[in-house]
Amino acid sequence: MTEKIRTGTNVFVYPMPVTLLGVNVGGRANFMALGWVTRVNAHPPLIGCGVGRHHYTVSGLKENQTFSINFPDASMIEKVDYCGLVSGKDVDKSGLFPVFYGSLETAPLIRDCPLCLECRLVQSVSFPTNEFFIGEIVESYTEEQFMTGGKPDIRKINPLLLTMPDNRYWVVGDHAGNAWSIGKQLVSR
Amino acid sequence: MTEKIRTGTNVFVYPMPVTLLGVNVGGRANFMALGWVTRVNAHPPLIGCGVGRHHYTVSGLKENQTFSINFPDASMIEKVDYCGLVSGKDVDKSGLFPVFYGSLETAPLIRDCPLCLECRLVQSVSFPTNEFFIGEIVESYTEEQFMTGGKPDIRKINPLLLTMPDNRYWVVGDHAGNAWSIGKQLVSR
Repeated sequence: MTEKIRTGTNVFVYPMPVTLLGVNVGGRANFMALGWVTRVNAHPPLIGCGVGRHHYTVSGLKENQTFSINFPDASMIEKVDYCGLVSGKDVDKSGLFPVFYGSLETAPLIRDCPLCLECRLVQSVSFPTNEFFIGEIVESYTEEQFMTGGKPDIRKINPLLLTMPDNRYWVVGDHAGNAWSIGKQLVSR
Repeated sequence: MTEKIRTGTNVFVYPMPVTLLGVNVGGRANFMALGWVTRVNAHPPLIGCGVGRHHYTVSGLKENQTFSINFPDASMIEKVDYCGLVSGKDVDKSGLFPVFYGSLETAPLIRDCPLCLECRLVQSVSFPTNEFFIGEIVESYTEEQFMTGGKPDIRKINPLLLTMPDNRYWVVGDHAGNAWSIGKQLVSR
C-alpha cells in the first residue's frame, strides 16, 4: 500500500481558473487576478468570488454592486499577472485593457477577453480574512471565433490555469473524454 | 472592432476542476462528481462546494458534518464520470474506490486519488437550487510520487478539467509561465 503523506491544511484547488475580476472604483475600471471563483447556484445562475478583504476591488464592489468576470486567453499572461502584482490603490489599471459596458453600466468588461460575464452583486458572505461575493450573471459576451456549434469552446478561448503554492500558470491540454457519457459503461443495465 | 455575441446567463467557469466530494451516509462512503468548488478563505483554510439540494450527498453532510474533496487523476475518468451519472439513492458507490479515514473519522478519502482534502463542515449558505457547503481543511493527503520540491505537482497529479455545456473533460497542458513573476516587466520602476 502506497504511503500517504500529510501536506497540511493550506491546499488549493488543482487547478484554479485564471480570471480578471473587474469593478469600477470612482468611475474608473480596475481589475484584479482572481482564481477563487465558482458557480454556486444553477437557477438563477449565481457565481461566487473569494476576495481578500484588503483588496481595492472591495470598495468598487460595494460602490456599484456590480462586477465582471473576464476569462483572458493565454497570450494575455503578462497583463493578467501584472493585475495580481499591483493594487489599484497604488496604480491606475484602467488603461490596461480596452473596456466596454453592458446593461449594468458599471461592470467593466474586457474587450480583449474571449469570454466575459456581467454580474450584479446579490449577496456577500464574510469569512475571517476574505469576503465571498455572490453575483447573478445577467449577461455574457464572447465572439463567433471562440465558439463551436453555438457553445464557447475552451480550445478556442485558450484560458490560463493556476496552481499554488508553486505559483505556475498552465494552459489546457487534450480532450480526455465526454462527461455524463464515458462512465456509462460502468452503469449496470 | 470585433463584434461581441451575447451568450446568455447560464455560463460556467472555464474550466472547472473535476473533484469527487466524499461523505458517509449511514456509515457507508458515497462520492459525487463536483466541479463547483473553490477556496473561500485564506486563514483558516476554508473551501466551498456548490451542491444541488436534491443530491444524496447532502444527507451525509448533515449527518456527519464532515466531507472530503478528492482530486482523481485522468486515468480514473470512467469512475469519476460514473459518480456523476448515478445517485447514491439508487446505487451503492461505497465499493468503487478503496477508502481511508483521517482524524475526522467520517470523511471518506479515496486512496487512488493523488490528492485528498479532509474537511470539517463549518457553515452552509442556501441558494434557490443549491446549497453551498463550507468546510475547514483539517488535513490533506498525497504521495511522494505526486510532489516536486515538497509541493504537489499538477503534472504528476494529472487531474481532469470539465467544461459545460459542451460536457467535455480535459487534461492540463503546458506550463505557461510563473505567477507573481511574468508580469513584473510591466511594473514601472
